[in-house]
Amino acid sequence: MEINFDGIQVIGFDADDTLWVNETYFRDTEDKFADLLEKYETKNKIDQELFRTEIKNLDLYGYGIKGFVLSMIECALELSNNQVSAKTVSALLDLGKDMITQPVELLDGVEEVLEQLKSKYRLIVLTKGDLLDQERKLERSGLSEYFHHVEVLSDKKEKNYSDLLEHLEIDPSEFLMIGNSLKSDVLPLVNIGARAVHIPFHTTWQHEEVTDVVENNGYMTMSTLTDVLKYV
Amino acid sequence: MEINFDGIQVIGFDADDTLWVNETYFRDTEDKFADLLEKYETKNKIDQELFRTEIKNLDLYGYGIKGFVLSMIECALELSNNQVSAKTVSALLDLGKDMITQPVELLDGVEEVLEQLKSKYRLIVLTKGDLLDQERKLERSGLSEYFHHVEVLSDKKEKNYSDLLEHLEIDPSEFLMIGNSLKSDVLPLVNIGARAVHIPFHTTWQHEEVTDVVENNGYMTMSTLTDVLKYV
Repeated sequence: MEINFDGIQVIGFDADDTLWVNETYFRDTEDKFADLLEKYETKNKIDQELFRTEIKNLDLYGYGIKGFVLSMIECALELSNNQVSAKTVSALLDLGKDMITQPVELLDGVEEVLEQLKSKYRLIVLTKGDLLDQERKLERSGLSEYFHHVEVLSDKKEKNYSDLLEHLEIDPSEFLMIGNSLKSDVLPLVNIGARAVHIPFHTTWQHEEVTDVVENNGYMTMSTLTDVLKYV
Repeated sequence: MEINFDGIQVIGFDADDTLWVNETYFRDTEDKFADLLEKYETKNKIDQELFRTEIKNLDLYGYGIKGFVLSMIECALELSNNQVSAKTVSALLDLGKDMITQPVELLDGVEEVLEQLKSKYRLIVLTKGDLLDQERKLERSGLSEYFHHVEVLSDKKEKNYSDLLEHLEIDPSEFLMIGNSLKSDVLPLVNIGARAVHIPFHTTWQHEEVTDVVENNGYMTMSTLTDVLKYV
């Protein structure tokens, strides 16, 4: 369906895989993880077990690279039945540091779109993950000047968004969210009476996939971010 | 010196070691870490090396338990010259999980003070560390109802506070911060024209210690949180 931008005052942008590449780096690291453990299990089994460990730890560690590294180490210990070498554990720590220091690669059209939106709307970044990591990426991206501020949420469920809009004193009818995850950036917003634009990224983490049938109601799917400019 | 609370609209509370016990758990975990590695080095050397590793990684990992656990693992690998067993690495992951799930122990007088302040001021929690971890502790503490919201900062330097006050549209002259760390909760505030109350906790992380001589100007030191009630 089509939605309009009437009455929108504030636009929230998801960051990872909406403004810049992220999931690709997790996938690459998972491949390297499987290579390091190839003598213990098949790649398929290693992928499954890592995902299982991440989900098991999600309540404890939350989102972000540090929790991911801790889960990789735990999974390596389990898959190897505590036979994994200290050298491999050290290599896992290095994989995490590589992810944290990865250069920021902007997605197409991001700067052009932000440049055009910034005079009409208050723009904020709304992300989950490590605060420090997200602040660093925003700084490295060169996009800081476009955003009023960054909000890092511990999760992106309806309650997290409601609390945030209340704290920012924004009515849901004045808020539009733009992001790549139906589950985190789109559906919770629609459910609390805000609007959303869904811009799929080519890779989605299994945990972010929506398996239920979803009525496309109150949000719009676009193939690229620059399509937003047709509506403002 | 004495300061007054005239014109204060918003009071920010540090959380760890101001509202509840925290540093004590880090100290306990450091002792257990040294026990696990006692065959490689003396306790003194292990403490020093862990601190060195934490500081080296601070820019990458930021504050909080997950970064601390990653630094413990890295330090164990280095101190043992990659001889540390997988079982010990597993024990370090468990120490981290124990810290994350530790019950929240409120400091004396906290509820009484918040109860009396909440009708007169907007109260916020201002902390560094893992967002999820701090939100969880606030929820477990039973103190959520007293606070307007939680702000987690990647660091607590002048710039972090200035950006935050600007985003919250609060003038520094209307803001008072209460916390246990001179370096993080008091001096940066005084330097940007806000007010602060310093309530020392019996244990301070070496990284938070202030070594320069400080003019006690623009802030007040109190021995317990309930002393605040004399001024409001």
